[in-house]
Amino acid sequence: MAVPTYSTGDPLLDFLYTLFNGIAEVPLFSSPITGVLILAGVFLASRKAGAMMVLAGLIGAGVAILAGAPYGLVTFGLFGYNSILTGMAFWSGPFVKANKATFFISIFGAAITAFTWMAFSHLMGDLFVLNGLAQSWAIPGFTSSFIFTTWALMYASKRFGHDIWPAPPPPQKEELIAGSNNPNTNDGFKWTVKEFMIATLKGVSQVTFVENWKTGVFWVVGLTLAFELAPFIAGVQDRPWWTNAYTAQWDEFSPLYLAGLMALLGSGIGVAMAILTKLPTAEIRLGLHGFNQVLVMIALTSFVPLTPQSFMMAVFATIGCSFLMPALQRFFGQWGLPALTGPFVFTAWVFLLATSGFQNIPAGIGWSRP
Amino acid sequence: MAVPTYSTGDPLLDFLYTLFNGIAEVPLFSSPITGVLILAGVFLASRKAGAMMVLAGLIGAGVAILAGAPYGLVTFGLFGYNSILTGMAFWSGPFVKANKATFFISIFGAAITAFTWMAFSHLMGDLFVLNGLAQSWAIPGFTSSFIFTTWALMYASKRFGHDIWPAPPPPQKEELIAGSNNPNTNDGFKWTVKEFMIATLKGVSQVTFVENWKTGVFWVVGLTLAFELAPFIAGVQDRPWWTNAYTAQWDEFSPLYLAGLMALLGSGIGVAMAILTKLPTAEIRLGLHGFNQVLVMIALTSFVPLTPQSFMMAVFATIGCSFLMPALQRFFGQWGLPALTGPFVFTAWVFLLATSGFQNIPAGIGWSRP
Amino acid sequence: MAVPTYSTGDPLLDFLYTLFNGIAEVPLFSSPITGVLILAGVFLASRKAGAMMVLAGLIGAGVAILAGAPYGLVTFGLFGYNSILTGMAFWSGPFVKANKATFFISIFGAAITAFTWMAFSHLMGDLFVLNGLAQSWAIPGFTSSFIFTTWALMYASKRFGHDIWPAPPPPQKEELIAGSNNPNTNDGFKWTVKEFMIATLKGVSQVTFVENWKTGVFWVVGLTLAFELAPFIAGVQDRPWWTNAYTAQWDEFSPLYLAGLMALLGSGIGVAMAILTKLPTAEIRLGLHGFNQVLVMIALTSFVPLTPQSFMMAVFATIGCSFLMPALQRFFGQWGLPALTGPFVFTAWVFLLATSGFQNIPAGIGWSRP
Repeated sequence: MAVPTYSTGDPLLDFLYTLFNGIAEVPLFSSPITGVLILAGVFLASRKAGAMMVLAGLIGAGVAILAGAPYGLVTFGLFGYNSILTGMAFWSGPFVKANKATFFISIFGAAITAFTWMAFSHLMGDLFVLNGLAQSWAIPGFTSSFIFTTWALMYASKRFGHDIWPAPPPPQKEELIAGSNNPNTNDGFKWTVKEFMIATLKGVSQVTFVENWKTGVFWVVGLTLAFELAPFIAGVQDRPWWTNAYTAQWDEFSPLYLAGLMALLGSGIGVAMAILTKLPTAEIRLGLHGFNQVLVMIALTSFVPLTPQSFMMAVFATIGCSFLMPALQRFFGQWGLPALTGPFVFTAWVFLLATSGFQNIPAGIGWSRP
Repeated sequence: MAVPTYSTGDPLLDFLYTLFNGIAEVPLFSSPITGVLILAGVFLASRKAGAMMVLAGLIGAGVAILAGAPYGLVTFGLFGYNSILTGMAFWSGPFVKANKATFFISIFGAAITAFTWMAFSHLMGDLFVLNGLAQSWAIPGFTSSFIFTTWALMYASKRFGHDIWPAPPPPQKEELIAGSNNPNTNDGFKWTVKEFMIATLKGVSQVTFVENWKTGVFWVVGLTLAFELAPFIAGVQDRPWWTNAYTAQWDEFSPLYLAGLMALLGSGIGVAMAILTKLPTAEIRLGLHGFNQVLVMIALTSFVPLTPQSFMMAVFATIGCSFLMPALQRFFGQWGLPALTGPFVFTAWVFLLATSGFQNIPAGIGWSRP
Repeated sequence: MAVPTYSTGDPLLDFLYTLFNGIAEVPLFSSPITGVLILAGVFLASRKAGAMMVLAGLIGAGVAILAGAPYGLVTFGLFGYNSILTGMAFWSGPFVKANKATFFISIFGAAITAFTWMAFSHLMGDLFVLNGLAQSWAIPGFTSSFIFTTWALMYASKRFGHDIWPAPPPPQKEELIAGSNNPNTNDGFKWTVKEFMIATLKGVSQVTFVENWKTGVFWVVGLTLAFELAPFIAGVQDRPWWTNAYTAQWDEFSPLYLAGLMALLGSGIGVAMAILTKLPTAEIRLGLHGFNQVLVMIALTSFVPLTPQSFMMAVFATIGCSFLMPALQRFFGQWGLPALTGPFVFTAWVFLLATSGFQNIPAGIGWSRP
């Protein structure tokens, strides 16, 4: 078995695994170290954000236990990450005000996300069963439950008679290219290596709505030190502490501790593509064109065995995601909503679904191909 | 077998079952008594609405028979309810004018809904087949075929050069909360128990676009008297007349004739949540924040065995639906379309899909879990 | 086996099959003659369009081979048609400018469409597996990968700081019917048989964004001469040259060479419905209300055995598509996007899904029913 169990029987240990694996699952794998470092990075940027990260993750796990979810999924952290993202999106993020009303919505959102997570997990996971369970092809739900829940809650809350959304900024006049319907985004900004690196690191930190390059450094370090630290359980599991959470879907003993590098690479591709397609400089510098690409690069190299061919596909998908991001940004933007990690989710789904039919791309254990 | 057959071999009896079960299926189960009482309540409010209810239901059933649908599904009423809703939405409802053009669209809509119903029934019903047919997990299509068909037809008809849509009311100025982008909905209205009950009953009647608390009373009585009245067929079926249609998905002999109570409870939760989130009072009083919740409470207690745990989940889902309703209202409202029963359908799907993985929630016969 | 193999082992022959079958698959079946005649018709209207048709089709096939797609699917043309449509939509079509920026997007779009095609093909093809692979029900992906890819790329490119979209025309004032919210489209135009035929033929040519009735004639002739010209391969395939590609999903020896007639009929129904529902005359004369209907008529008579009953259903579906077209036109139009072949794809999916449950409609080999 390539994936470890974190259900130890010790309540405190289980609690810690549930919490930190739940945070580490935001970038899609379970390593308590990754979780600790991400949480530290988030606290560094905002204590409010860090507190909600902990609270929302525990609420998701608690609701799942109450409803009777398999306990192993809870300690593995799978009920954490989506609830965390829903909770944080309504609290301390750049979208809505942080007050009593949004606090209640954050809590409620974190709780209901446990149900939407299970629904999407079942939907994507059990769609393709060929010739019985032994030959099933699953697709991960990724952060789909977070995005759909949050879009719905955000859009609903615009109608509420409570003080939730900040007053809109005065409308900006968009200058068009002569004879064209495309915007003239030329603002004379000169990209330097340093500015590029800052935008890239902010792209990493933006995965949890934080715009802070130092938080990004914590992320990259945490992603790199992706040791599973799986518990020793007599008769069940005897696994060294250093197994690789990032590669555990296909080989937990792989020495490729490359999740941090992939995150940087993904964010960097996003920044480069945004510069190339001349998106507004301000957005690029905030890291908005990096966080989806971070997740695409990690997802397509951790759920698919990393080979030169699958790496090429991941890069290609990341470029594709750099088209989908401005599309969904504009799409949801018209309703005053953020694109969230929608571009990542849809890109990763398409490429994992496609992997099923492309024999030059290897497939993982139970993902994409039997 | 928990679900009865209504195919008697007697054309007149089959006709009556097809008609009244088709109406009773609007609130998701098959009882001729429920059908008769709902139809009476609708006629009470509008003869036009009642006539279209009968006509559209029969068209849906007729098209299904022509196309070769299993006859048992037709007499069970499954080709009635969606066609009825599509037909009524274009006729005598609050949306479009009632004239020759909309009459034709109603008829065409009722007919094509037989095909979309079969498509959604197949899609949701046959998605999850694990280890062969014996272990299949189905999800009901609910009123999905009605909503997608009606949204498409409505939106198309806005482009037609025929007199279909009423002239829009003059735009109303929305007052915002100071320093916020949220509306100030405070209009000084004081909710009393009586007003709350009227809004709740109207919420029930709004399931078929009727705003009339007396119609709501007919609904509640009809839902309560959910006797199946299944025909005696020698050698096939010997079943007492009083079996419970509302609980027939998990125990037809259950004494819990609670469908009417669930409808009231669902609508009441919807009204309470709308007051709590400060939605416009006028909408709440029209019953617009009740009808989706009525269907969520019935669906999640009749397709899932009713236990304290599943009841808690149904209430939680109904609260969730009270977020999804204003979201979809605003979403479709921007295009001049109603949300219809979209909030119910999506909420019920998510919670039935989630049920598959939550072991504290029991599952029905063939629904959600094998 | 009803479907031929085109993998001959001869690189040049394989190349030609890949190219021309890829073009012929735009109207949903594989015949090199159909492909040659369609390409000729497109060249007749625009050399640019013809060149992109060839280029985009080869890029789709090339990317598929690189990624390791089954070679037989490539020579059958299945990686051609969607890439062709994506490529052409960004080049020489009526939507965006033809310049260096859109050329690159066309090329990138054609390449990534190979992945989205595989994803949709897997999604729709492997959803319904009952009791193992022997009893699988598949639904074709049709041109879904083209439409979703192109919508995303188009919408993204509106944000790019490059000169891609033409300056919008000055807003036109829409005159309403008195007391109604519907447009007054009465412009005094008198439809003659000749005008009707021109609109119908343009409806056929519009499948690849060409507005030219002569191109439509090439299409109709090419669709009629749907000989498979399958290669003789010793020990593998000995098949006469004249087998019918249009009917090959259910009987390759059928003498019903009716694809051209179905195209005309579909487009004609579309024009008639648009006149009946009083859509703007200018749109009808451009052929915009024909191309989706062309594809619906072909799809529902070539993936479903052609009988009087299935023919009736196809006509009914084509009428339904004539509602969905103005709906999606308005829906995507608000964002400055075309409806593309969305109305066809969704209509054909619904009716093929419904076919699974309607026993009076025959089903093909592996499509819709086991």
